[in-house]
Amino acid sequence: MEVFTLFGTDEHKEKYLKPLLDGTIRSAFAMTEPDVASSDATNIEMSMVRDGDDYVLNGRKWFASNAMHKNCRVLIVMGKTDPAAAPHRQQSMMVVPIDAPGVTVVRNLPVFGYHDREGHAEILFEDVRVPSKDVLKGEGEGFAISQARLGPGRIHHCMRAIGVSERALELLCRRAQSRVTFGKPVADNANIQDWIAEARIEIEMIRLLTLKTAYLMDTVGNKEARTEIAAIKVAGPNIALKIVDRAIQVHGGGGVTDDFPLAMAYAHLRTLRLADGPDEVHKRAIAKQELRKYRDLRPTS
Amino acid sequence: MEVFTLFGTDEHKEKYLKPLLDGTIRSAFAMTEPDVASSDATNIEMSMVRDGDDYVLNGRKWFASNAMHKNCRVLIVMGKTDPAAAPHRQQSMMVVPIDAPGVTVVRNLPVFGYHDREGHAEILFEDVRVPSKDVLKGEGEGFAISQARLGPGRIHHCMRAIGVSERALELLCRRAQSRVTFGKPVADNANIQDWIAEARIEIEMIRLLTLKTAYLMDTVGNKEARTEIAAIKVAGPNIALKIVDRAIQVHGGGGVTDDFPLAMAYAHLRTLRLADGPDEVHKRAIAKQELRKYRDLRPTS
Amino acid sequence: MEVFTLFGTDEHKEKYLKPLLDGTIRSAFAMTEPDVASSDATNIEMSMVRDGDDYVLNGRKWFASNAMHKNCRVLIVMGKTDPAAAPHRQQSMMVVPIDAPGVTVVRNLPVFGYHDREGHAEILFEDVRVPSKDVLKGEGEGFAISQARLGPGRIHHCMRAIGVSERALELLCRRAQSRVTFGKPVADNANIQDWIAEARIEIEMIRLLTLKTAYLMDTVGNKEARTEIAAIKVAGPNIALKIVDRAIQVHGGGGVTDDFPLAMAYAHLRTLRLADGPDEVHKRAIAKQELRKYRDLRPTS
Amino acid sequence: MEVFTLFGTDEHKEKYLKPLLDGTIRSAFAMTEPDVASSDATNIEMSMVRDGDDYVLNGRKWFASNAMHKNCRVLIVMGKTDPAAAPHRQQSMMVVPIDAPGVTVVRNLPVFGYHDREGHAEILFEDVRVPSKDVLKGEGEGFAISQARLGPGRIHHCMRAIGVSERALELLCRRAQSRVTFGKPVADNANIQDWIAEARIEIEMIRLLTLKTAYLMDTVGNKEARTEIAAIKVAGPNIALKIVDRAIQVHGGGGVTDDFPLAMAYAHLRTLRLADGPDEVHKRAIAKQELRKYRDLRPTS
Repeated sequence: MEVFTLFGTDEHKEKYLKPLLDGTIRSAFAMTEPDVASSDATNIEMSMVRDGDDYVLNGRKWFASNAMHKNCRVLIVMGKTDPAAAPHRQQSMMVVPIDAPGVTVVRNLPVFGYHDREGHAEILFEDVRVPSKDVLKGEGEGFAISQARLGPGRIHHCMRAIGVSERALELLCRRAQSRVTFGKPVADNANIQDWIAEARIEIEMIRLLTLKTAYLMDTVGNKEARTEIAAIKVAGPNIALKIVDRAIQVHGGGGVTDDFPLAMAYAHLRTLRLADGPDEVHKRAIAKQELRKYRDLRPTS
Repeated sequence: MEVFTLFGTDEHKEKYLKPLLDGTIRSAFAMTEPDVASSDATNIEMSMVRDGDDYVLNGRKWFASNAMHKNCRVLIVMGKTDPAAAPHRQQSMMVVPIDAPGVTVVRNLPVFGYHDREGHAEILFEDVRVPSKDVLKGEGEGFAISQARLGPGRIHHCMRAIGVSERALELLCRRAQSRVTFGKPVADNANIQDWIAEARIEIEMIRLLTLKTAYLMDTVGNKEARTEIAAIKVAGPNIALKIVDRAIQVHGGGGVTDDFPLAMAYAHLRTLRLADGPDEVHKRAIAKQELRKYRDLRPTS
Repeated sequence: MEVFTLFGTDEHKEKYLKPLLDGTIRSAFAMTEPDVASSDATNIEMSMVRDGDDYVLNGRKWFASNAMHKNCRVLIVMGKTDPAAAPHRQQSMMVVPIDAPGVTVVRNLPVFGYHDREGHAEILFEDVRVPSKDVLKGEGEGFAISQARLGPGRIHHCMRAIGVSERALELLCRRAQSRVTFGKPVADNANIQDWIAEARIEIEMIRLLTLKTAYLMDTVGNKEARTEIAAIKVAGPNIALKIVDRAIQVHGGGGVTDDFPLAMAYAHLRTLRLADGPDEVHKRAIAKQELRKYRDLRPTS
Repeated sequence: MEVFTLFGTDEHKEKYLKPLLDGTIRSAFAMTEPDVASSDATNIEMSMVRDGDDYVLNGRKWFASNAMHKNCRVLIVMGKTDPAAAPHRQQSMMVVPIDAPGVTVVRNLPVFGYHDREGHAEILFEDVRVPSKDVLKGEGEGFAISQARLGPGRIHHCMRAIGVSERALELLCRRAQSRVTFGKPVADNANIQDWIAEARIEIEMIRLLTLKTAYLMDTVGNKEARTEIAAIKVAGPNIALKIVDRAIQVHGGGGVTDDFPLAMAYAHLRTLRLADGPDEVHKRAIAKQELRKYRDLRPTS
C-alpha cells in the first residue's frame, strides 16, 4: 500500500489502492529470488526485456507474502531492466495482476513446518507481458523504490516482535508461577528469574529505540533514520527470539507443540532475521555509517 | 528394547523383544504427562490402583515417541502405584498392549509445524486393566528402571546431535562457498569464517566428551558416568542448535523452508533440550555433584 | 551529598555539606563488609551498641570509595543497632569523622592491579564512639536511607558506563581504520563490523532507557522507578564491558597495557557489576516485580 | 629453549641452552611490535640490514616476556632482512645478548594494573650489530622458525588455562557453599548452579581436546595438528575467562581485589587471547582449512 500511495498512477490507485484500503483485496511483493542472495539487490536475476510498448518478464520469485491469500489480486515485481546500467539503476518495479498469463503460483513455502494461510509463495514468471504504463516511477527506479519502502516494513516487523516478546514473557511468568518442580514453583528458581529480568530489560530497551525510530521517520525521514531502522530490524527479532526460546523451555514439551503459540511465534520470528535482508547486511550498513566518521584514518597505500 | 532386555519376563521377551529386534513391531515409552512438570518424577500423576490381581490405570501421557507408527504394538507406562511411599518408591512401570481396552491414542503432537510419521503421541488411559505379571521388575521399581534406561537414551540423542552438526556445517560451508554477495563469495566474510571455526571447535569438543562418556558407560557403568551423561545431554543439542541456526542464516530464506533439512533439524534438536528432562534439570544434577565436594563448608545454622 | 541533603541535621549541613559542595572536602560511604555478602542488608555485622548518649562501633568495612583521598574528612557508616528488630529496622546510619579515635584506614584496595588515587578503602572500627545526635534520621532508619540513596548512585554509574562505551567504540573504530592486516584495514573485516554495529545498537538502547529512568526519577520518584533503576544498573555496565573487551581485542597487546585507557576502564566497569549489589540481586528484584502480576497463579499447597 | 634445541648452533647450545635448562639464565622472545599488527608476520618492521659480516638491527619490540627477569641474558629477535623477498621469506631470527650495545629495555608493560616480576618488556634496538653466525637456521627462515615454535607455546598456554579454570571453579564452589544471602547458601541458587555445571562441562571438553592435540603433536607433528592447536588456543583462554569472571562475581567486591587470585588470573588469561595471535587470526585459519574441502564450489567469474 505504501508503494501505491507514493509511486502509483491514478489508475493504480483506483484499481488497487482503494480496495486494498477497504480490505477487499490483497497485494504481494515479489522481490526475493531462490537462486541468488537477494540481500544484494544487484544480484536480482528476473529479466524484464523491453518489447515494443511492453516488457517481457521471466524468472522465479519466492517469499512473496500474502500471495496465497484467496483475495490476492496484484503483485509488485522487482526485476532487472538494464544489466548494463550502474548497479543501482539496473532494476525496475512493475505492477502485475496475479492472473496475468504466464504467472504461476508454484507452492506455499513452509516455515519450520508451518504453512501460513496467507502464505509465502513461490511464483514462476514465464513470458509475462507488462505494459510500460505499469512500471512504477520509471525504468531504473526499482532500487530507489525498494529503499523507500523498506523503512516502514521494517519498523512494522519490529513492533510485532515487541508484541510477541511481551506475550511470551507473560506466558513464561504464568507457567513458572503455576508449575511446581522439586517442591517449589518454577518461578522461585534464580535462573528462571534471571531470564525474566533479562527479558524485561531488553523489551524496555528495544521498545524505546523503536519509538525513537518511529519519531525520526516521522520528523527527519526514512533516509536520515536508516541507522536506527537497521538497528531495530536486527535487535527486535533477536531479542524476541531469545525470550520465546526461554518461554518454550519453561513450558517443557508443550512449548514445541501447538498447544501454545510459542513454537509458531519462534518460526515466524526466525524468518524475520532473514526477511528484508539478513542481520549481517544490516549490521554491515550500521558499521559502515559508524566507520565513516574515521575514514581519514585509513592508510593510503 | 533395553528395558525388556534388562527387566522383561520370559513372556515379554518372547512376545515383544524378539519382534522388536526383528524390526517387525515397534514399542513406545509413555512417561511424560501434559499436566505436570515430569522432569521431577515425583510429580507423575497417572494412577495405577491395585484391584484384585490387576492394576487399573487412569491418566494422560504425551510425547510417546513411535506410538503413531503403524507397527507399534506395546507401551511401557510409568505411573504411581503408592502415593504414600518414599518419593522414589511411588512409581511403577507396566507393559500395556496398545490395543488394550481403555487406551486411546488421541493425537500426533506437532513439533514446531512438523508431524513426524512415527509421531509423538498423546495417549489417554481410562480404566485400563493390567495384570500384575506385567509390572516390570516389581511394584515401586519405576524410578529405578527409568534411571537405568536414561543413560543409553541420552547418549543416542547426543550422537545424533553430533551427526546433525557435521551435516549442518557442511551445508553451511557449501552454501557460503557457492553464493556471492557484494562481489565475493559469502565464505570470504570474516564473520562467517568465525562461525565455521566455532562450529568446528565445538564439534571436536563434544565428540570427544561423548566418546569418553561411552567408554565410561561401558567400563564403570551408567551410574558412575552420570555426570558425563548429563554433560553431553546438555552440550550436544545446544552446540548443534547453534550450528544449525547459523547454517539457516547462511541459507537465507531457503533455510527456514523444507528445501533444506535445516529447519526440521532445528525443530527436532530443540525438542531434545526438553526430552528426558530439560537442560536445567541436568545442570542442577551436575552442579550438585560438583558442590558435594565442598559440602563441609556450608554454614551450620 | 545526597544523604546529607535529605537526612542531615543543620550541624551536618554546615560542617560537611557546604565544604562538600565547595569541593574542599570529600566524604566516603562505608557499607560493604568483607566478611558477609552485603548485598543482603540483613547480613551487615558492624555492631553499633548504645552506651549512655553514645553508640560504640566495632567492625570492618571495605570498598569505601574516596576514603583514601587526602581531603576525605567524614564517613557515613551503616551498622546494626538492633539485631532483634524486624529485618529492615535493624540497621542505622551514622556520621563519623575519619579521624575519630578507633578509626583505622587499613589499606587501599586494588582493582585488577589498579590502585585508584581516591581509593577503595578498607577501614577498621574499634570501639569508635559516636554521639546519638550523629545518627541519621533516627535509629533503625539505615535501610530506608540506603534505599533512598541508591537510585541516584546507580544512575550515575550507568551514565558513566555509557560515556565509557562511546569512548571505547571510538577507539575501536579508529584503530580498525588505521591498522592493516592481511592486506586490508582491520575495519574491512565483517566480524569487526558486526562488533561495531552491535556496540552502536546497544549504546542507543541503554542510553534511551537511562534517559527514561532519569525522567521517572524526576517525575514519579526513585521508589516508583526502582525496576528501571535496577534495569540500567544491570544493563549499563554489561553493555560497556562487552564493548571495551572488543576494543581491547582490536588493539592487540596494547589493549591490555596502560598505553590506552581500555584495560583500566574494563577494571572499573567490572567492579560496577558488584558495587551497590551484584547483577543477580538486581535481576532478582526485577523478576519479583514482574512475577507479582501473576502471583494468584501460585499453587496453594 | 625449543628454538635453541631445533635451530641453535653448537655455540648457542653451549652458551645458552645448557644454562637455560639448568635454570641459571632466562631468555626472551622479541617478535611483537607496538606499531604494526604483528599477527600478520609480513607486517614486521624491525629492520635487519646486512653490513659486512654483521646485520644492523633497528626497531622496537614489546611483550617480550621474561625480559625483565634479573637473570635474562639473551633475546631471540624476529626482523625483516629482505623486504623484496616472497612474503614468508622476508623475515629472519637472530640471537642477541640482552646487554649488546644499542639494546635498551625501555619499560615493563603492565597487564591491566599488574606488573609481572618476569615482565612483558618493551625493548628498543638502535644500530644493534649481530654477527651473521647468530642468524638462526639462515636468512629468510624467520617465518618457518616461528611456525615451528608456536605449536608447543600454544598448548602450554592452553594447559595453564585449564589449570586456572579448575582452580577458579573450586574457589567459586567454596565461596558459594560458605556464603549466605537471603537465608540460604549462595550455592542453593539455580543460576549459580547453572554456572557451575557449564564450567564443569566446558572444562571436560577443553581438557579432552587438549589431550588429543598433544597426542597429535607427538604422533603426526605440529603441522598436521595445526587445526587442533588453533582450536585449543582459541577455546582454552575463552572458557577459562568465562569461569574466572563468574568466580569473581560470586566473590563479590573481594573478587576484583588481590585477596583472591581471580582478578590477576583474569588479566593474564585476557592477554592470552592476544598473545601468539588474536582469536580472530586462529579462527580464520581453522575456517580456511574447513572451507578448503569445498573450494571447487566457488564461482568462477
